[in-house]
Amino acid sequence: MAKQQPLILVTNDDGIFAPGIRTLVEEMMAFGRVLVVAPDKPQSAMGHAITIHSFLRLQSVHLIDGVEAWSCSGTPVDCVKLAIYKLLGGNKPDLLVSGVNHGANISINVLYSGTMSAAVEGAMEGIPSIGFSLMEHAIEADFSHVRPVVRSVVQDTLKHGMTSGICLNVNVPKNTGLPLKGIRICRQAKANWEDEFETRFDPGNKEYYWLKGEFRSSDHGEDTDVWAVENQYVSIVPTQYDMTAHHSIATLNTWDHALG
Amino acid sequence: MAKQQPLILVTNDDGIFAPGIRTLVEEMMAFGRVLVVAPDKPQSAMGHAITIHSFLRLQSVHLIDGVEAWSCSGTPVDCVKLAIYKLLGGNKPDLLVSGVNHGANISINVLYSGTMSAAVEGAMEGIPSIGFSLMEHAIEADFSHVRPVVRSVVQDTLKHGMTSGICLNVNVPKNTGLPLKGIRICRQAKANWEDEFETRFDPGNKEYYWLKGEFRSSDHGEDTDVWAVENQYVSIVPTQYDMTAHHSIATLNTWDHALG
Repeated sequence: MAKQQPLILVTNDDGIFAPGIRTLVEEMMAFGRVLVVAPDKPQSAMGHAITIHSFLRLQSVHLIDGVEAWSCSGTPVDCVKLAIYKLLGGNKPDLLVSGVNHGANISINVLYSGTMSAAVEGAMEGIPSIGFSLMEHAIEADFSHVRPVVRSVVQDTLKHGMTSGICLNVNVPKNTGLPLKGIRICRQAKANWEDEFETRFDPGNKEYYWLKGEFRSSDHGEDTDVWAVENQYVSIVPTQYDMTAHHSIATLNTWDHALG
Repeated sequence: MAKQQPLILVTNDDGIFAPGIRTLVEEMMAFGRVLVVAPDKPQSAMGHAITIHSFLRLQSVHLIDGVEAWSCSGTPVDCVKLAIYKLLGGNKPDLLVSGVNHGANISINVLYSGTMSAAVEGAMEGIPSIGFSLMEHAIEADFSHVRPVVRSVVQDTLKHGMTSGICLNVNVPKNTGLPLKGIRICRQAKANWEDEFETRFDPGNKEYYWLKGEFRSSDHGEDTDVWAVENQYVSIVPTQYDMTAHHSIATLNTWDHALG
């Protein structure tokens, strides 16, 4: 008897009709049965947001022949929850892949990223989960060199399984024509956003603001995701949802903690 | 010459007119100069979302005499960014406090919480930051027993400073009339949401879904935030934005990583 095919849930944050998710769906079809649930509009930088003050909709859409696909009115994390608790009746897929994001999700951007938040939600549900991102924002970005990366990481994940409590954050350098040097397991680089707001005036002369930020990494460690992608490597950061700073517990225990 | 008063940024996710933030502002006035920037509407469960596909507005509001207060059209993290990069011209406040949230932010809820995401954003900006949450959702919740907790944690933070890269997640049990037993430094409990979607039909007979979840902790560790608040203690979890699962790097290095 043939082994049952794995069920693979695919989502993203750029919206269900973005080229990045199409790439991912096409590659996943070789690995198993594919279910797509992705936002009906761009949901970049939505982080781990979920919809609790409003309701959600699902709409069946045609993406690729033979693939069940639904667009969702909510966030990437909403998509994961709806897939599991509405469409699959509480059953968990064997694998969750998110992306391929149009744009990098290295370093602290893991916190802002809808792509990665969907993968983190998958990990919280005990599903082996991977977020893929390409270091290029353009809608017409070239994903051809990302395909072997996706195949390699998915193959390894299905073979080895995923440690409980973690998911993978995979970032792939932009295609410059040069071959990728390989895959590096990394830590999340220390970095920050130097933000700025551009002030504009509406026709009624009332101010409004657009966020413009510049990403700055001052972390020169060669074990970081920033270093890897700048040096033509694919970065993989094992990412956990336990945000406890265990190393700080001892220090905090020396505080007064007086409840006067 | 008198020492300059610390500048304290106050935000939340329940909206600028929630009783919880008023409690926090009143307490902070004893510690320094207070600047309030908080959402103009409830932004619970917005996680680390920021607004990049639309613009933001700020509106000067009267909250408490003598306190500069602004309502913001965006998320809690947007509020922090606007406070620093628009209102303070890039200068950092000496302290950031977020809350007091109407509802718990224990365990994995740190990831969904707008209250805590604002504090995490503060940590990313190098600001000593604290999120306060009360284990009671009601708008008319009693915050009187939270006040000494706020004073104690803020006093300790101003005295000892905050380790770089972390913020504090403080949860206070609901007031049952019994005295709090004290403050415990904890780790984030392992837990999950058993979600469910309630299906309804609109007047046009089209389905829509409301998320309903049940929080389940199977972690019986007495060093967790869940244990602390269930046992009449205030929990403090030091919370970091480095999500790297450092303990998994060695295992992942044994994978194939073939780019065929």
